[in-house]
Amino acid sequence: MGADSPAVYLALLHYPVYNKEREVVATAVTNLDLHDLARLAFTYGCRGFFVVTPLKLQAKLVQRLLDHWLIGRGGEFNPTRKEAFSRTRVVETLEAARAAVAAETGRPARIVATSAREHRGALSFGELRARMAAEEGPWLISFGTGWGLTEEFITDVPELILEPIAGKGDYNHLSVRAAAAIVLDRLLVQAR
Amino acid sequence: MGADSPAVYLALLHYPVYNKEREVVATAVTNLDLHDLARLAFTYGCRGFFVVTPLKLQAKLVQRLLDHWLIGRGGEFNPTRKEAFSRTRVVETLEAARAAVAAETGRPARIVATSAREHRGALSFGELRARMAAEEGPWLISFGTGWGLTEEFITDVPELILEPIAGKGDYNHLSVRAAAAIVLDRLLVQAR
Repeated sequence: MGADSPAVYLALLHYPVYNKEREVVATAVTNLDLHDLARLAFTYGCRGFFVVTPLKLQAKLVQRLLDHWLIGRGGEFNPTRKEAFSRTRVVETLEAARAAVAAETGRPARIVATSAREHRGALSFGELRARMAAEEGPWLISFGTGWGLTEEFITDVPELILEPIAGKGDYNHLSVRAAAAIVLDRLLVQAR
Repeated sequence: MGADSPAVYLALLHYPVYNKEREVVATAVTNLDLHDLARLAFTYGCRGFFVVTPLKLQAKLVQRLLDHWLIGRGGEFNPTRKEAFSRTRVVETLEAARAAVAAETGRPARIVATSAREHRGALSFGELRARMAAEEGPWLISFGTGWGLTEEFITDVPELILEPIAGKGDYNHLSVRAAAAIVLDRLLVQAR
């Protein structure tokens, strides 16, 4: 990674997100989300991946998973997975993630929200890429689980909102695993 | 989808692939793979998604899953998932997938293999995109589960091999769910 690469962090939020009935909920952590996003973040040179959940029992389970791969048997079984999880942390809130990034980089993170819905003022992928090249980070790119980050969150918290991924038609119900992969690839890899 | 969009099909192969010890195995089907790739294929306008497994019990389980979403309660619970699975089929071999594509389109599919390993003669993403724009399909893009499609398969079966996804460093251990998302996005979406 060159010195000119933007400092990028990922956050996977399990709260505040919608469920299918558009109620605001805290979702349960999906094991495969952590494996996929940790590997993705590592592949794309992200500095860290935050699993955000306010539920203490869920946080405990995540920490147990991380310990298994980082300290326990998992790392012997599969060293590439250990490497991927070396930059994964579980935190209670996005604020805690932002504080951790500030402690690490000496600068407050600029929070970017992603959404499958349209939002006024959302940046296109090209616009965000240009800003990441021109402006100083660190950048904390946030993904919601369930049926996505709540409107209230998106209005209040992030500095920047990224446009939805458009495929070939009107259908966009990608998994957060697929969406995060596409977003990082579009933002961080130039060679096509 | 315009009439000029290339006809693209996806195949997820559970055999012949490597396990971690580089033995040739048939892997078990992962439920989330089917959900993610069906939604991805639908989002990107693919004509079909083939789940390929030679194991009869596994094929039966996949068919039961499809029936749940297409005929059973699943479709009422979540209509967008029903839509995504409407183009998913389970077949025993890639040959059977190729035959189904030929029956549907009247032309033999051109098989593209993907791999996280380097191969002589592999096309870059830009090269394959250019060929898909200039030449007639249909295109059947194949992904391996486990630790990837075997060398023997890659040498013998596909007409074309696609270069590996490169992130920011040497690490490339993406999940097949993330890899398929990035590959389709790079091949099928031009707007950046």
